[in-house]
Amino acid sequence: MKSAISFKVQNTSGQARAATLTTGHGDVPTPAFMPVATQGSIKGVTPDEVRALGSNIILANAYHLYLRPGSDTIERLGGLHAFMGWDGPILTDSGGFQVFSLGGLRRVTDEGVEFRSHIDGSLHLVSPEDAMRYQEVMGVDIAMVLDQCPAYGDNDEKVRLAMERTHQWSERCRAVHNKPDQALFGIVQGGHNLEQRAASASILTDMNFDGYGVGGLSVGEPREIMHRVGSFTAPLLPKSKPRYMMGVGSPLDLVEAVGWGIDMFDCALPTRVARHGGIYRAEGRIDITSAKYREDTGPLENGCDCDVCNHFTAAYIHHLFRAKELLGGRLATLHNLRFYQRLMAQLREAIVKDALVSFQGAFRACYTPSDDAARLTQLGKWAASRGRGQKTD
Amino acid sequence: MKSAISFKVQNTSGQARAATLTTGHGDVPTPAFMPVATQGSIKGVTPDEVRALGSNIILANAYHLYLRPGSDTIERLGGLHAFMGWDGPILTDSGGFQVFSLGGLRRVTDEGVEFRSHIDGSLHLVSPEDAMRYQEVMGVDIAMVLDQCPAYGDNDEKVRLAMERTHQWSERCRAVHNKPDQALFGIVQGGHNLEQRAASASILTDMNFDGYGVGGLSVGEPREIMHRVGSFTAPLLPKSKPRYMMGVGSPLDLVEAVGWGIDMFDCALPTRVARHGGIYRAEGRIDITSAKYREDTGPLENGCDCDVCNHFTAAYIHHLFRAKELLGGRLATLHNLRFYQRLMAQLREAIVKDALVSFQGAFRACYTPSDDAARLTQLGKWAASRGRGQKTD
Repeated sequence: MKSAISFKVQNTSGQARAATLTTGHGDVPTPAFMPVATQGSIKGVTPDEVRALGSNIILANAYHLYLRPGSDTIERLGGLHAFMGWDGPILTDSGGFQVFSLGGLRRVTDEGVEFRSHIDGSLHLVSPEDAMRYQEVMGVDIAMVLDQCPAYGDNDEKVRLAMERTHQWSERCRAVHNKPDQALFGIVQGGHNLEQRAASASILTDMNFDGYGVGGLSVGEPREIMHRVGSFTAPLLPKSKPRYMMGVGSPLDLVEAVGWGIDMFDCALPTRVARHGGIYRAEGRIDITSAKYREDTGPLENGCDCDVCNHFTAAYIHHLFRAKELLGGRLATLHNLRFYQRLMAQLREAIVKDALVSFQGAFRACYTPSDDAARLTQLGKWAASRGRGQKTD
Repeated sequence: MKSAISFKVQNTSGQARAATLTTGHGDVPTPAFMPVATQGSIKGVTPDEVRALGSNIILANAYHLYLRPGSDTIERLGGLHAFMGWDGPILTDSGGFQVFSLGGLRRVTDEGVEFRSHIDGSLHLVSPEDAMRYQEVMGVDIAMVLDQCPAYGDNDEKVRLAMERTHQWSERCRAVHNKPDQALFGIVQGGHNLEQRAASASILTDMNFDGYGVGGLSVGEPREIMHRVGSFTAPLLPKSKPRYMMGVGSPLDLVEAVGWGIDMFDCALPTRVARHGGIYRAEGRIDITSAKYREDTGPLENGCDCDVCNHFTAAYIHHLFRAKELLGGRLATLHNLRFYQRLMAQLREAIVKDALVSFQGAFRACYTPSDDAARLTQLGKWAASRGRGQKTD
């Protein structure tokens, strides 16, 4: 069967690829970062703004949209593109990860997952076939299979069973998927066991998906493990298909993962930390709420080409956060998304010039990653602000 | 002394005037509605957007900015225009109203007001001279005198004393005000006693301010009283100077008050109710969170020329509110501000055509005011969302 998407690699630099992903809603130069519109909205930002920041594809979440407003409602309203006013490509995660992390999970059987809605506690049974139908009626460009995502710390046996069930469900998703203009990606599982990852990559490759997600990472494991598993898994996936590292990551993660041959990313990090004053710069992330920015008349980041840095001072945005003004989070979000999209464009340019290694070296030399303490502080602020069962970004 | 502003009346219709207020930061066609940037930001909206909505002047609050980030900080950062990135005219309320409504008020003497900051409880003494200095260093186009605003329900004696003190303070403000490019407005007090209002208007007129605020209204009194006092007071103020009805009001209030000869308004209503799903339409205010909009593929308001109505459906914005997505409040705010600015433009056009009475008649026939029950519900939502001591819009 002809794929709903095409993926043309134009240049490589080591294992990294500069390619073009073509969908029914337009082309996406890769490597690409997908801003996260979990509930059909990138928090506080309009589709026009998202586009102007350099985004060519976004991610939404089928689990959240299935629960609210409901996939049938979205279908009646003309599909997700019309509903949210975004005419570019959309990829939806099936919701496997959300069921396991958010829902009051009741039971996983071969049939599917039974869970309670994190919104109203209602009981739902979702099979792989259901997950296909929800994504099909929403009309997105790329659907993901329903997968079972083990928790970090699960033992080998649990991880193996989740992987095997993911393989069975993947086959069922493939069998019923029936929307010629929608691509379907498989999801590699296997935890941190490299043998299982290799087996998963091989089995899914044989199923001939339109592209491949690497799942089960960025779920709380140390960064070294994520890098070890990701760098091992990516090259095992077909060279001719897009490879998508799910839920990853920090700027440094992206710079490394592109070098392993990953083409697509999504992560709530740039938008989530923005709402708490975390601002990305080439040299690392800063906290704009710090008193040191109180009278800083420079932009959020020197040399940044974003509208926010062209119009507002760090001092003003510092004030907005201190005064709990909504505009603060919005401006920080715009800057951070631009930072991410500019980084992707720089990575692509480095690949085109076959100069990725030197770009990575320069980036690592300049960028100080947030240490674990800072990361935990941010995570705590975020968790406190969300309350129970409200984690959508 | 030459005034920092000019006010040229072009047309009248009954007592209503279509004029141009000229300031050092540009012209303002009147009648004009000033969006509220209490803390130096119109909630969730950028200055460019505010301008595009048809706003030519905004209001900020000297009380809030004096406390945070501090008027001296704003001065060092180049003044309020540079600080917030708005290059049009700015009017600041002195903070008289906020001291009495927000601060832990300690004492009012002839010297000034002593109060505790609603932010950190610190003790402040602000004299009329201080209020002038704060507004001068922030560099705004129009400053307001420090006034004493009685509460609704205060007895005649209290209201009279507050008025007399306001007159004394007004004189002191006038005496020390020393910024040639900044206009200074007096504020008429006198509660709901028409004789006192007449006396206040007369005394302040003799002081020869650049313009006149009508204060002490919209503080909890029934709408009829506000209309009675406003319609009585406005015509007593000089025809050659701008008249500003402070903190007013609903669309219907604006339509009526323009007929009394009021030229300027500010009110947090359109932005505040927007954040809770209150949407203005020509026929009245609706609650977009209501289930009836769940699959409404029309815009927020039929025929509206705003960007939001051109790009998004009521169903999508309903979803954003239900899902607690930040974008919902932002889109509702943009629509409501456009509704207000369009109304002001229509009022001006009606005056230019000397057809205000028929415009008012048509507006009243179409627009159903929010009943007291609905108003109280909205006020309750707002109060609950703000918590204690956080009322900034």
